[in-house]
Amino acid sequence: MLIIGERINTCRQSVMRAYAERDAGFIRNEALRQAEAGADVIDVNAGSGLDVEPENMAWAVRTVQEAVDLPLCIDSPNPATILAGLNACRDRRACWADSITLEKQRMDGILPACRDRQACVIALCKDEKGIPRSAQGRAEIAKKLVETVDRYGIPLANLYLDPMIEPLCLAHDAGLLAVDTLRELKAQLPQIKTVISLSGISFGLPERKLLHCAFLPILMHEGLDAIFLDPADQRLMATFRAARAILGQDECCMQYIASHRDGGLANGGEGLRRDDKENMR
Amino acid sequence: MLIIGERINTCRQSVMRAYAERDAGFIRNEALRQAEAGADVIDVNAGSGLDVEPENMAWAVRTVQEAVDLPLCIDSPNPATILAGLNACRDRRACWADSITLEKQRMDGILPACRDRQACVIALCKDEKGIPRSAQGRAEIAKKLVETVDRYGIPLANLYLDPMIEPLCLAHDAGLLAVDTLRELKAQLPQIKTVISLSGISFGLPERKLLHCAFLPILMHEGLDAIFLDPADQRLMATFRAARAILGQDECCMQYIASHRDGGLANGGEGLRRDDKENMR
Repeated sequence: MLIIGERINTCRQSVMRAYAERDAGFIRNEALRQAEAGADVIDVNAGSGLDVEPENMAWAVRTVQEAVDLPLCIDSPNPATILAGLNACRDRRACWADSITLEKQRMDGILPACRDRQACVIALCKDEKGIPRSAQGRAEIAKKLVETVDRYGIPLANLYLDPMIEPLCLAHDAGLLAVDTLRELKAQLPQIKTVISLSGISFGLPERKLLHCAFLPILMHEGLDAIFLDPADQRLMATFRAARAILGQDECCMQYIASHRDGGLANGGEGLRRDDKENMR
Repeated sequence: MLIIGERINTCRQSVMRAYAERDAGFIRNEALRQAEAGADVIDVNAGSGLDVEPENMAWAVRTVQEAVDLPLCIDSPNPATILAGLNACRDRRACWADSITLEKQRMDGILPACRDRQACVIALCKDEKGIPRSAQGRAEIAKKLVETVDRYGIPLANLYLDPMIEPLCLAHDAGLLAVDTLRELKAQLPQIKTVISLSGISFGLPERKLLHCAFLPILMHEGLDAIFLDPADQRLMATFRAARAILGQDECCMQYIASHRDGGLANGGEGLRRDDKENMR
């Protein structure tokens, strides 16, 4: 499972400030820290101020590239921002566009550039009516997304479907529904990869990190292919390594034992740094 | 899912000492502490010294009954010890016998008393050749166990099948194999309940509690009916409450939020008491 580091997101006040002050050191440090903690992809979100968003995105993408050599995920509902981010990506750097839906304006605005750039695309299982309240309803949207992405000439190996997570505090079946949708997608579209944003489950509830640690092993067990999370959450990354061992993805538990030696299990992440306590989205 | 508190077990030196010194206060305290932490059943194990084991078991059962009003699980491979434990149980107290296998001597020694006592029975998916290395092999043994228990006149509602967990350090597919067996049992014997001993997975590995926290949500998601664990492990019990919320077993997350208010999530159990660090079996 690929880990997409979600920390460069304007839902965090410190990131908002870094954009406003063009604090490249802060952004570089966030990228580097996530890479060191085990991120495979670095997400870049540049906020919701529509006028400055594309310019902010381009700046952030250039800045992150100075620090790490990982793929970048260009994260915006706004096609102009995604294009600005893709254009700022260095040649041959792998990148992701996050996200499209079945809205024509988003598909027309984003998919041609993804095709030309050979970018991965994240597609959300929602339509103009919202997010269906059944796994089957979401899978029906997924099939249309697959057809559309294919029609735009994008290899399906580059597509990641997001089954969508709602907050548990709004719907107590939100976790089960996400898992059921994941199973449904794996059954009906076995060749298509999947992605979820973990922290969506815990909005509005106490001890959010605890909920993330309880949900992550279930999603891994269901075969999720990629996940947005905070790699600086040491307990969560320790849980990730433990779940890999339990799920037979770590031959002879060698990586688990090596992580223990390197402090990567860090007493199960119980000694968190103070600045890790800033909540994510 | 029922929680069977596993702390009264002679694999702990402090429990060995309590048996040797007839320290009833220690045993009562362990029972009470587990009940307060959320145990539904209290396991009583009286060690491996065959001569004194039945007498120790009867003493421990009488002692635990002074402290808590929960069902007791009489835990021994030795039929004489199980009989001594069942006989010491107060009238009308629910009890469990842990465990039988396909060995005739164990079945003949234990099952008639379980039938008369209306006790629950734990049956291990192993035979005289050992534990099969496939889910299908274990399910075949399970079917024979079900037939046998039925033939002894025990209601199948009182039977719990144990799919068996081996340590990950000996077989890196041990977690997957246990989960696959659980699925197989649920598919082939949907009316029969299941039980697992969580700490079996982590023998010989560092950060054992972390592995338990990563495994527990997966087992809950697969529909496990009962589990042996250490309810004094605060992080594990917090994970249990979080996983219930995520799996839709906690309407409006009311129990999760109440646990948070009562300190039952306790910063995700990060502030463990020193004496919680004594390793379980």
